[in-house]
Amino acid sequence: MTRVFPEEGRRRVAIETVRPRVDGGRFPIRRSVGESVCVEARAFTDGHDRIRCVLRHRREDGVQWHETPMVPGRNDWWRAEFTVPDLGRYVYTVTAWVDHFLSWRHDLERRTEPEDIHVALLMGAELVARTAERAMGADAEVLAETAATLANGTDPDARMALATGTTLGELMERHADRSLATVSSPELGVTVERERARFGAWYEVFPRSCGATDDSHGTFRDCENWLPYIAGMGFDVLYLPPIHPIGRIRRKGPNNTLAAGPDDPGSPWAIGAPEGGHLSVHPALGTLEDFRRLVASARDHGLEIALDIAFQCAPDHPYVQEHPAWFRHRPDGSVQYAENPPKKYQDIYPFDFETADWQGLWLELEGIFRFWIEQGVRIFRVDNPHTKSFAFWEWAIASIQRDFPETLFLAEAFARPAVLHGLAKRGFSQSYNYFPWRNTKHELTAYFTELTRGEGREYLRPSLWPNTPDILPEYLQFGGRPAFMIRATLAATLGASYGIYGPAFELVETRAREPGSEEYLDSEKYQIRQWDLQRPDSLRDYLTRLNRIRRQNPALQHDWNLCFHAIDNEEMLCFSKTAEEEGDVVFVVVNLDPVHTQSGYVEVPLEEWGLDPAQPYQVHDLLGNSRHLWHGPRNFVKLDPRAGAAHIFRLRRRLRTEQDFDYYL
Amino acid sequence: MTRVFPEEGRRRVAIETVRPRVDGGRFPIRRSVGESVCVEARAFTDGHDRIRCVLRHRREDGVQWHETPMVPGRNDWWRAEFTVPDLGRYVYTVTAWVDHFLSWRHDLERRTEPEDIHVALLMGAELVARTAERAMGADAEVLAETAATLANGTDPDARMALATGTTLGELMERHADRSLATVSSPELGVTVERERARFGAWYEVFPRSCGATDDSHGTFRDCENWLPYIAGMGFDVLYLPPIHPIGRIRRKGPNNTLAAGPDDPGSPWAIGAPEGGHLSVHPALGTLEDFRRLVASARDHGLEIALDIAFQCAPDHPYVQEHPAWFRHRPDGSVQYAENPPKKYQDIYPFDFETADWQGLWLELEGIFRFWIEQGVRIFRVDNPHTKSFAFWEWAIASIQRDFPETLFLAEAFARPAVLHGLAKRGFSQSYNYFPWRNTKHELTAYFTELTRGEGREYLRPSLWPNTPDILPEYLQFGGRPAFMIRATLAATLGASYGIYGPAFELVETRAREPGSEEYLDSEKYQIRQWDLQRPDSLRDYLTRLNRIRRQNPALQHDWNLCFHAIDNEEMLCFSKTAEEEGDVVFVVVNLDPVHTQSGYVEVPLEEWGLDPAQPYQVHDLLGNSRHLWHGPRNFVKLDPRAGAAHIFRLRRRLRTEQDFDYYL
Repeated sequence: MTRVFPEEGRRRVAIETVRPRVDGGRFPIRRSVGESVCVEARAFTDGHDRIRCVLRHRREDGVQWHETPMVPGRNDWWRAEFTVPDLGRYVYTVTAWVDHFLSWRHDLERRTEPEDIHVALLMGAELVARTAERAMGADAEVLAETAATLANGTDPDARMALATGTTLGELMERHADRSLATVSSPELGVTVERERARFGAWYEVFPRSCGATDDSHGTFRDCENWLPYIAGMGFDVLYLPPIHPIGRIRRKGPNNTLAAGPDDPGSPWAIGAPEGGHLSVHPALGTLEDFRRLVASARDHGLEIALDIAFQCAPDHPYVQEHPAWFRHRPDGSVQYAENPPKKYQDIYPFDFETADWQGLWLELEGIFRFWIEQGVRIFRVDNPHTKSFAFWEWAIASIQRDFPETLFLAEAFARPAVLHGLAKRGFSQSYNYFPWRNTKHELTAYFTELTRGEGREYLRPSLWPNTPDILPEYLQFGGRPAFMIRATLAATLGASYGIYGPAFELVETRAREPGSEEYLDSEKYQIRQWDLQRPDSLRDYLTRLNRIRRQNPALQHDWNLCFHAIDNEEMLCFSKTAEEEGDVVFVVVNLDPVHTQSGYVEVPLEEWGLDPAQPYQVHDLLGNSRHLWHGPRNFVKLDPRAGAAHIFRLRRRLRTEQDFDYYL
Repeated sequence: MTRVFPEEGRRRVAIETVRPRVDGGRFPIRRSVGESVCVEARAFTDGHDRIRCVLRHRREDGVQWHETPMVPGRNDWWRAEFTVPDLGRYVYTVTAWVDHFLSWRHDLERRTEPEDIHVALLMGAELVARTAERAMGADAEVLAETAATLANGTDPDARMALATGTTLGELMERHADRSLATVSSPELGVTVERERARFGAWYEVFPRSCGATDDSHGTFRDCENWLPYIAGMGFDVLYLPPIHPIGRIRRKGPNNTLAAGPDDPGSPWAIGAPEGGHLSVHPALGTLEDFRRLVASARDHGLEIALDIAFQCAPDHPYVQEHPAWFRHRPDGSVQYAENPPKKYQDIYPFDFETADWQGLWLELEGIFRFWIEQGVRIFRVDNPHTKSFAFWEWAIASIQRDFPETLFLAEAFARPAVLHGLAKRGFSQSYNYFPWRNTKHELTAYFTELTRGEGREYLRPSLWPNTPDILPEYLQFGGRPAFMIRATLAATLGASYGIYGPAFELVETRAREPGSEEYLDSEKYQIRQWDLQRPDSLRDYLTRLNRIRRQNPALQHDWNLCFHAIDNEEMLCFSKTAEEEGDVVFVVVNLDPVHTQSGYVEVPLEEWGLDPAQPYQVHDLLGNSRHLWHGPRNFVKLDPRAGAAHIFRLRRRLRTEQDFDYYL
């Protein structure tokens, strides 16, 4: 009987459960530049031998591994971390081996009988001598000498000191025998994106509404005039709905009516007309050159343009004629429009991702991103990615980020959890999510605990939007101005990334198309709107303050540092974020009730925040710019939503006493 | 630029998180014959299309896949189960595809306009016609006819009925186009073992103590005389410590003293002497033929012999001379004995699993199992498996179970959780565990919730031992007879598999070697003991009752059905087990305090158990054979540990009324 053996049966260390890992390593985790990856692995061997564990990482396109020794914790868990300094892809793995030197030294230190110690030193000498053979140069010499002394030295104390000393320990670690090391499998991946993937404030605007005060179609040039206003509020990203020619066939009229009048501009998401498709600019907005000028001008204002990419066609999109194979056809030869019976979207033709020419389709769609990258765009907001094939996204995003690793993708997938997460796993830098519908204390606490503590945090970065052109939540419809302030505050502080659709937001647009609908009345999706940016009730100043606070407090630029705190009122929410490096604690108290004044006692985690229970401490409300002296763990907060529904406190841990001043003795 | 594409980019279904799976599929799950495997998978596609999911399984050594349609649940989870009827290995996987027929029919049923319905029927006709081309024989004909009717039929209602009917649905399902199906990866494994892997009562005895009443060395023949006693108590497995020749060099004396007298028998775990090693029988026990006779005789009593396998050698084991390469050597050329400094075990030589001749060592050790299998043994209790290489166990157990799938292995790994679980993952059928040290209500509830609900349950089957020759827990030392009854009851009812080391157990041996030690005084490990099996205070009758109750109540033959129930006394524990098929509810109330009478109110989950809150129900105490009428959800229980520290109730759901009897009208 021929027996089958493993290739090497002497690898005695088992490495199990290396984490973080997504779906067993099928997908990479996600970080932004400069962040760290804290890796844990369960590793153990048979018997009493000591093991060593090392975390290894390298750039995916590199060959040089970097090693970090792992530190053992409880229950055979080992831990180490590495930093990802650059854009791109990294891989990591864990390797571990039985370290006979460590085992030997551990035993040596516990031996008591001189004869045992003598024999043990001889055994150690053998170990060291064998290691000397593997080493080179000076190390080899020192090791050989050490082996000789361990074996033949005459001073027992000196031999013990040599055996247990750090010099020998370091040399033996450097030249450890790893021939029987176990390497964890598979190698796990990290996608590293720039900081904007994690932290940023977005402002969405329809450029065609940026015109003068009449009903004329706004242009990119008009849009440039808005840059000081938007940048002035402290936003980082200016996101434009699709800027392409809009189909005329079955164009929708105001409020999504079926019959558009001759002057109705149509929906920017009904892409394509004889003038061009996804690679063209709507003539009424200007030229491609105008667009590039807007990109440059925005950059001068500290704003980055994000472009909407919607992979669908109006019936008069050139693709429909040029690539009939990319669409499904009906028995009468017409192209299959989008539908969800009994609803029909006859102005929209979806692509058929099961087309025999799927490679041609993929290349073309991916080329659309590349075209706009050439025009200077590096952020894309992807419309309804969950109605396009997952395999395509995984391929396209990886392909583009290989060449342009600074490119970011925001997934507009207000879809079921598996789909939302599935898209994030496949490469989207950020994801819209259920924030618009999480309003109560319980909902917010549960959802943000899941987002920031659940396994999904390794790949899903939430982007929080109180409103979008499609979503005017009922909370905003009925809560009025205080509701807008509450939701903006929550978005800007619960999330490192957030965005608003303006000016509908700062001008407190509350009118829905009909009761029960989240659609805006007279939605900009179907018509040009005029906005009075100077209205005195605008939330412009409030948003400006929020964004300034975000920029000045690194704690608010991260998601995982979120921590909820008790407050004894169901209408009030309290949470904190701490910046590890700066020790900067920011904590937020929000009245979630947009109508009534609410009050309650906040539980301050004194010990966690390093506060002396016997001393007062100062909390500085960055929104109202007021300072309060607090004492002990329970402190009273009262918030009138009409006056200001939230405090964003910055903690000052220690107040000065007389001893801090020059005049004290 | 040459572009790289996936092999097939049109597979639109994502399958994520197929479970159960152990370490991403690295290890198989474990079942016993006839059990089912309930598989869940998260599967979804882009857009609104309908998908189908199918669970596939086959014998690992077969080619024939069996398919079970999966049923969708919440959040894109799909579920199905299959049964494993035979010993051996199975694999399972999930496959899913976009079902255009289902999507089409789903939409069709929602269409309202006649023109839409007409066009949709034409499209359906195309789908059906294409399917007809794939089908054969009668199915192909019916499909072709159906396609023609859908396209050209004159009666609209008849066409709709045909389109939405079950006949067409079944045909389209049978001949579904799976060319773009996604198959989950990797294939996941199931190891199927016989029922005894899950359910059985073990009795451990030192055969050398089975002699007559004097100090003479008991034999296998003597052991045969004990079979009626052991079988009479209702045990299933008779487990013998090692039966091999015992080393004489550095033999240990009574109570583990270093100097053995000339008549001291030594420890059975110090295996090997000039008479032979692991393939030999200790001459004082009898011959190999005597052993085979014992195996056969035990079988006649309904008992199966389990043999202890301890892979270690006494200094005079023949291996030491024959295979010096299998041991480590000290600088003076002597063989390295086992040690854990400053402790030395000079009577034991461990194998060196890093030997260059590891293949030779593995073959020899695995051959030891095969040798005893030839003698009729099919259950092995493996001594300290965690001090031998994990890779060896994985290889050896798989190799043996391939040829003898009825073979079972019990791991004696009272080791750290990762090691305990690591061994179970690698093939051990059952595992010793921390039960001996889980005594309080909190400890028992937490531990058994982990064992029966945690992920480990897929591969780790606990074997519960109140005592072993190495472990006389303090609870038994100080709790006396009631403590023994409590622990036996817990072991026999919390676990489908349990065992005791007797007669020390039923004769309530409480004397430890010294305070703080869990070693028995005058342990049988080092000396022959005489036991008076007829002592009136023996727990023999109690154990007999426990084992009879276990055999008569299928609910007690499983682990996963364990459920804890509230009882308002911290010294009392209440739990139930329900047999799914029989609807048989057994619930146990134990007083954990071996000294004081305790009482409390049990919370009975009326609804869960299908009880009418308005009706009384009968609970039958199978231990005391008393019946009680209970009412409603709270019932009083009082237990005096001296009289009987537990009830094992069997629930009778419905009491007869006058209407159940003949004399009623």
